[in-house]
Amino acid sequence: MEKLMDKSILELAPLLQTKQLSPVDLVKECLQRIEETEPTLNAYITVLHREAMESAALAEKEILGGHYKGVLHGIPYSAKDLYTTKGIRTTAGSKVLEHNIPDYDATAIIRLREAGAVLVGKNNLHEFAFGGTNENEYFGPARNPWNPAMNPGGSSGGSAASVAASSSIFSLGTDTAGSIRIPASFCGIVGMKGTYGRVSRRGVLPLSSSLDHAGPLAKTTWDAAAVMSVIAGYDPLDPSSSSHPVPDYTEAFSCEGSKPFKGMRVGVCERYFFERLDPQVERAVRSALLRFEELGAELVAVDVPDIYDAVNARGIISLSEIYAYHSGILKTSYEEYGSNIRKRLETGQYIPAWAYINAQRLRTQHLKAWDEVYQKIDLLVSPTMAIPAFPIYADTISLDGNEVDPRNLDVSSRTPPSNFNGYPAVSIPCGLTEEGLPIGLQIQGRPFEEGLVFRSAYFMEQLLASGVSLSAAV
Amino acid sequence: MEKLMDKSILELAPLLQTKQLSPVDLVKECLQRIEETEPTLNAYITVLHREAMESAALAEKEILGGHYKGVLHGIPYSAKDLYTTKGIRTTAGSKVLEHNIPDYDATAIIRLREAGAVLVGKNNLHEFAFGGTNENEYFGPARNPWNPAMNPGGSSGGSAASVAASSSIFSLGTDTAGSIRIPASFCGIVGMKGTYGRVSRRGVLPLSSSLDHAGPLAKTTWDAAAVMSVIAGYDPLDPSSSSHPVPDYTEAFSCEGSKPFKGMRVGVCERYFFERLDPQVERAVRSALLRFEELGAELVAVDVPDIYDAVNARGIISLSEIYAYHSGILKTSYEEYGSNIRKRLETGQYIPAWAYINAQRLRTQHLKAWDEVYQKIDLLVSPTMAIPAFPIYADTISLDGNEVDPRNLDVSSRTPPSNFNGYPAVSIPCGLTEEGLPIGLQIQGRPFEEGLVFRSAYFMEQLLASGVSLSAAV
Repeated sequence: MEKLMDKSILELAPLLQTKQLSPVDLVKECLQRIEETEPTLNAYITVLHREAMESAALAEKEILGGHYKGVLHGIPYSAKDLYTTKGIRTTAGSKVLEHNIPDYDATAIIRLREAGAVLVGKNNLHEFAFGGTNENEYFGPARNPWNPAMNPGGSSGGSAASVAASSSIFSLGTDTAGSIRIPASFCGIVGMKGTYGRVSRRGVLPLSSSLDHAGPLAKTTWDAAAVMSVIAGYDPLDPSSSSHPVPDYTEAFSCEGSKPFKGMRVGVCERYFFERLDPQVERAVRSALLRFEELGAELVAVDVPDIYDAVNARGIISLSEIYAYHSGILKTSYEEYGSNIRKRLETGQYIPAWAYINAQRLRTQHLKAWDEVYQKIDLLVSPTMAIPAFPIYADTISLDGNEVDPRNLDVSSRTPPSNFNGYPAVSIPCGLTEEGLPIGLQIQGRPFEEGLVFRSAYFMEQLLASGVSLSAAV
Repeated sequence: MEKLMDKSILELAPLLQTKQLSPVDLVKECLQRIEETEPTLNAYITVLHREAMESAALAEKEILGGHYKGVLHGIPYSAKDLYTTKGIRTTAGSKVLEHNIPDYDATAIIRLREAGAVLVGKNNLHEFAFGGTNENEYFGPARNPWNPAMNPGGSSGGSAASVAASSSIFSLGTDTAGSIRIPASFCGIVGMKGTYGRVSRRGVLPLSSSLDHAGPLAKTTWDAAAVMSVIAGYDPLDPSSSSHPVPDYTEAFSCEGSKPFKGMRVGVCERYFFERLDPQVERAVRSALLRFEELGAELVAVDVPDIYDAVNARGIISLSEIYAYHSGILKTSYEEYGSNIRKRLETGQYIPAWAYINAQRLRTQHLKAWDEVYQKIDLLVSPTMAIPAFPIYADTISLDGNEVDPRNLDVSSRTPPSNFNGYPAVSIPCGLTEEGLPIGLQIQGRPFEEGLVFRSAYFMEQLLASGVSLSAAV
């Protein structure tokens, strides 16, 4: 029999609302699932047994008292340990912050609490969201529920692993170059980063301020859309957050007829996005493109001018901003950093201000190229990653006939462009490899068109479902 | 008899509107005045004899045809040679751009043309708006109409000199650290920079992009407000421009009763703004503060926390952005730069990106301090400069009993804070020294409260007028 924790928000919410299911029982099962899976997965840095049970009891009382708050009420979730939590250790996956107990909550945490969701723990991640998948993390590596010998992707690896293993129903992640979408792809779940500024980053430890995005990882598109509808929106405490109105994204999922994508133009950019792919990934994604056509969409070949210049500019911006944030901490906590991440951080100190400023200027120019591309299309579809998950601690992986470093740009080049342009992007499951590892499909859209991105993801998800129970592989 | 060119826009506009005065006659007199004064002042790099007469003829035809466009119709004006003008040499005061003929107009130039104003020439300035008042400019130094041995301030020195000498009715300047207000102060006229983003900078050659402001220099506050009402407003070609609505600023100048400032709180920050002043400047400005009280305002002592940290951050930001812009041009035109400005430019190349980013972060924090200061006050009043105009090529000037470099921060520290916080600020005449040199009063206000700044300047101007005809000193 399917356990409660194997269900989605969409399935659980009616049970909770109608009092057939107690939040206390659900959270108990969640903590039980964490106990069972953690020895294998290491998806959590901190588990909040007491706090979660207290929140569940409160939710139960509220619902029994007739105060049902909405679909997240009583739902257990986790958050990447980059989200500041009041009175709860917030480590950023680093020894530097091992004993850091903040005195306030991140805005997304506050909004989820107000919606009645129950925080059960803080997820493992790459150190400061910057360490690589190949490095010895201070809290040990998170592992992939589909095959614990494999890494779950990063940097929100613990978030994705916990959701895929149903040791949380959804999780909050962050995405500076793909850190939500990459682990979503590797773990066969849905990961969404909205438009730059769509979700408040107040209380989310920064990596690279002009590229950082916050967003949900969830089992299904519907679930991700439901979470996004709660956490998105203007926050006076985050001046970079947008006041653009936030719809209920799940309301876009109705459809009349068999061609929900009629009139939709789906861009395919062969250069850059379809180069040097694992053959199984390529096959799965090209097959998905045909499904877009079946649903009524028109495929449009596009090209993004100067995208490699943008890649270089993004690197300059990212390293500069990362070092800027860490420059002070490095002075006081030099020895506490992992040696690999510290070495990589320090490369940022030599970038001159003029190079950073000119890279930001190039970025502004480059946005015009993207704007022109999106005159011709409504969505841009590609693989999320060139490869499926690879072994933890692998020095090299095989790609396009070559052995390459897993941090090679070719592997993970398809996610950073939407951090650079700030456009919304989702990764959804797109079948499995012969080895039984998930493949991810990325759908990008225009600024603040999260609704359209979610809607297309929702219908594609129905067609692409792997048929494998999400937590069956653990 | 007073010449036409000695009049203000407010005086000329009714004559033009009622066809008592022909724009052709006015522009002819303007070009005549330029001929007379240029040998002494060198306020222009390029004079547009033919183009100005053509525009004047067009304005005359329009007005005679019953198509009067408003108070700037037929008014001759000049623009700092940093404003791009289509088909007209735009030098930025540098040999580097000696032969630069742009193929488009700056947005402010377009808006003034649409309002019927007649561009008569491009004003002299410090090289790239960055050269110092003490340096040998490629086009020679502009001189101060009140005493040609004195410099007119900078970097919009030619703009201020031409307006003060009535060789133009108003001028467009730019202000990155005071470059509108400083020459306005030294030349006894009105210079206004609005809120950051208030006036489009499209087509204005950048100095330091996050600190640059465009704005008018004029004979009177009314004139400056009239010009601002035309050039301010959102410009799709300048993404940093604001969509905040633009009123007709001159409409705020009506008053009932003798206490137009009743209820107004005028901030006085002794630290930083009133330190190390020339005694005559101090006397004039303190006397002006009493006039604020006479008009009904309450004086409120305030302090701006951490203002010296802000000064340092501003320096980092400014030098970084200036070098970023020039880094490419330096490669191709190294020898064409003035040696002094090049040396100063090059100090920017060594600033690391992390220092720039952290300086911008400090700036964001510092804005909160300003916001808190302005909870207690409506306006902040200070001297514009610590000193009156000083001799051209002076190596040192006397200040507070010491001989200091004229570029010493103490001399010109009162204008850069409103570039750093982006708040509007005006300099208006505040009497003359015993030597007959103008003193400037600076009034700063809250973001987008240009209306209040202008209004207070307007009433103070009536009380502080020096009684000396503006062009009499030439």
